Amino acid sequence: MRNKKPLILVTNDDGYQAKGIVTLIETMRELGEVIVFAPHTHRSGMAGAISAEHAIRTWLHTKEEGFTMYVCNGTPADCVKLALNEFVDRKPDLLVSGINHGSNAAISVIYSGTVGAAVEGSLFDVPSIAYSLCDFYPDADFSEVVRVARVVSRKVLEKGLPRGVSLNVNVPKGKVRGIKVATQTPGKWVNEYYRTKDGIGREVFWMTGQFDNWDKDNEENDEWALANGYAAVVPITTDMTAYDFYSRLKEWEL
Amino acid sequence: MRNKKPLILVTNDDGYQAKGIVTLIETMRELGEVIVFAPHTHRSGMAGAISAEHAIRTWLHTKEEGFTMYVCNGTPADCVKLALNEFVDRKPDLLVSGINHGSNAAISVIYSGTVGAAVEGSLFDVPSIAYSLCDFYPDADFSEVVRVARVVSRKVLEKGLPRGVSLNVNVPKGKVRGIKVATQTPGKWVNEYYRTKDGIGREVFWMTGQFDNWDKDNEENDEWALANGYAAVVPITTDMTAYDFYSRLKEWEL
Repeated sequence: MRNKKPLILVTNDDGYQAKGIVTLIETMRELGEVIVFAPHTHRSGMAGAISAEHAIRTWLHTKEEGFTMYVCNGTPADCVKLALNEFVDRKPDLLVSGINHGSNAAISVIYSGTVGAAVEGSLFDVPSIAYSLCDFYPDADFSEVVRVARVVSRKVLEKGLPRGVSLNVNVPKGKVRGIKVATQTPGKWVNEYYRTKDGIGREVFWMTGQFDNWDKDNEENDEWALANGYAAVVPITTDMTAYDFYSRLKEWEL
Repeated sequence: MRNKKPLILVTNDDGYQAKGIVTLIETMRELGEVIVFAPHTHRSGMAGAISAEHAIRTWLHTKEEGFTMYVCNGTPADCVKLALNEFVDRKPDLLVSGINHGSNAAISVIYSGTVGAAVEGSLFDVPSIAYSLCDFYPDADFSEVVRVARVVSRKVLEKGLPRGVSLNVNVPKGKVRGIKVATQTPGKWVNEYYRTKDGIGREVFWMTGQFDNWDKDNEENDEWALANGYAAVVPITTDMTAYDFYSRLKEWEL
């Protein structure tokens, strides 16, 4: 006999009012008791950033049977840390972050606040998943990503994940052909700035750009999966050691 | 006959006025032509964060023979991106970030703006190094880390680094016994908040805590090196794929 429903912690980087998190909360409430700890506004591009230079605050937004929501003025990683250090009584069975409006595939993993939150959860030994839809539109159609999120979340609730490993799940726009386990596509963003003027004529720079894929024909990687209509599931580590280069570096005379 | 001195890009996350970057600039001017692109103020804990939600600006601070300094109101990663996309004519031979006031060993690598800047540089195929001193004091003694930075920077100028690999160099307080190539120590921060009140009585949370080392007796890792008086050099990758778990994940029915 199960005496408790799974406890699921939900966060994101688009802020608690985004359609993506509202959709994710609905989906997770089918699976268990939900606690939300989300940024009060847009914190895209925050990576694993933490508020080291100033204090943060949090507000209880909603409390009802099986559902609690806090809003926080910190980063996505702050939300996870604050929830798990100070506010959640029992260890969650699952953390889900998103659903992000826009892709976090390939190198975006190192800039994404959505992924930063999942990485943080994995350090607490909470099985953690970042969900992103490859569509920036605020009113995007999340029906296919919801279908994927149900499958992947249920499987992670059943099997768990090793401490320090989270999943980065990206879902293409339109009909999804299936779910593929993939590797992070190597590459970088190029032409990254739009140079213009502010209201009093000073030069300012806005982020923009295109992704330059360094491994286009590799069917193992997440960009290939997405380009071919599959949802991509990349396991993400917190160990950034470049083991491939480690033994060569040891031969240097330092 | 060499026709050009090496070009060295310098940045940090403590802001352009910190003793750490002033010291690093002096040291790098011994080795080549220096261009600085640094945050205008403290941006600790910014990881690889980018300014996706607002425009950034930059100012020319100093221009003299062999030395140029720009100050920028973005994150450390923004500084590197902006410099290399828009302001630096030839590709730098080296990027150095720091010298950070405080350790960036072990899991701090995923939160550190100092490291985030070096990771960004490595994507541009610029050999990049993050330097940190395990001493938070604003007026810390940087003489030993300068000695290490001369050795490591000269070696990287000579040998280069693979694209997407940077070095995370941490130096202990006090006399340094030598330089050790190391792996990232597994672990996490615990007891991460100091709960107090703001000026009008509202509850606020400040970051604090201790590092919980999950692999204390491993002589390969960076915390062991530092605890035993060595500077630790960890090669860092931009590929966050958890290859150890990848094949197991492929066996899941998704």
